[in-house]
Amino acid sequence: MTIQPNDLLAALRFRYATKAFDPARKIPAETWDAFEKSLVLTPSSFGLQPWKFFVVENPEIREKLKAASWNQPQLIDASHLVVLTARTDLTQADIDSWIARLSEIQGTPIEALAGLSGMISSFSSAMTPAEKQAWNTRQVYIALGQLMTSAAVLGIDSCPLEGISPADYDTILGLPGTGYATAVACALGYRSPEDKYAVAPKARFLDAQVIEHV
Amino acid sequence: MTIQPNDLLAALRFRYATKAFDPARKIPAETWDAFEKSLVLTPSSFGLQPWKFFVVENPEIREKLKAASWNQPQLIDASHLVVLTARTDLTQADIDSWIARLSEIQGTPIEALAGLSGMISSFSSAMTPAEKQAWNTRQVYIALGQLMTSAAVLGIDSCPLEGISPADYDTILGLPGTGYATAVACALGYRSPEDKYAVAPKARFLDAQVIEHV
Repeated sequence: MTIQPNDLLAALRFRYATKAFDPARKIPAETWDAFEKSLVLTPSSFGLQPWKFFVVENPEIREKLKAASWNQPQLIDASHLVVLTARTDLTQADIDSWIARLSEIQGTPIEALAGLSGMISSFSSAMTPAEKQAWNTRQVYIALGQLMTSAAVLGIDSCPLEGISPADYDTILGLPGTGYATAVACALGYRSPEDKYAVAPKARFLDAQVIEHV
Repeated sequence: MTIQPNDLLAALRFRYATKAFDPARKIPAETWDAFEKSLVLTPSSFGLQPWKFFVVENPEIREKLKAASWNQPQLIDASHLVVLTARTDLTQADIDSWIARLSEIQGTPIEALAGLSGMISSFSSAMTPAEKQAWNTRQVYIALGQLMTSAAVLGIDSCPLEGISPADYDTILGLPGTGYATAVACALGYRSPEDKYAVAPKARFLDAQVIEHV
């Protein structure tokens, strides 16, 4: 069952960067399960999925992350917190493990995927290490977009968190040396009835400033 | 009206990077209108919307873009084509025009927004020009994610296009000197009944490889 265009727009207008969550309300387990599956299903270039998503449940870790996030209360009050991390590299081993997984799922012999593998390798080898990480990080932002849009259509509130110290997040989550680095975070849950931002008119530039027909 | 978790997942599983579109099927005008509104509503850091979205209708321009996209047939066969561009800079004038717009929509005096304005300025001034463009480009990927997820829940097919020559796109669209540069493109429409990719099993890493609970 799909959604109607007007219902999609109503959901996207319902969405806003929630500053005050209701700490008493938790996302039901089966709904949260859909969020995790939605993260896993996020599309990425070549299907490489250059990411890992940390669902932070431990209250002590959330306190530490809060301190690395300008003490924003969402870190504690939101029902759920996801830290979206990007692969810091794109190695031949990364490509090989993706090709092996594709082969396994689609029942295609590895040899038949040699063309795809070669294409990814030549694409990858044209990038510097910094470009690879930047490219992986952009892919992670697709996941952030899908996550927030998924939340909106499910009627769940979210707040993207860019005002964080990624280096401190990495340390807190034990990421140095793992090949992953914090890109961005997102808090999810239910808005507090007192969040004044919930009733602020949605502000965007005019359609004509943002959309151009050619 | 929101969507149920299982329906969201069905929509995300329906989605795949459509390689062959049915050239005879067009997205109805009112549905397309919802896509444009969805693009406009995309969240961005500080609300800055550092982007412009080009909806390319002109068949000659689409032919030229196809030549700058490894001749991928989606450029022509898809019902609609969006080129997502990012601001190449983040100037005080950008910040001022956003603050002015916010003031106008929310009925808040500009002076009352001085704190926000100063926060964005100090954030921005800490970045090099290259970092600003990279940051803007990441924001554009949120729009790409929202666009593809919106398509999925509307039952519309899409194909993200990263295998393009951004510099050639810029030239074709007349972007040099405008302060915007091509980040990525996305074709939207309806899959061809002959697209063999439509029936390929969806391939992702195992949940446990991608999601970590801490």
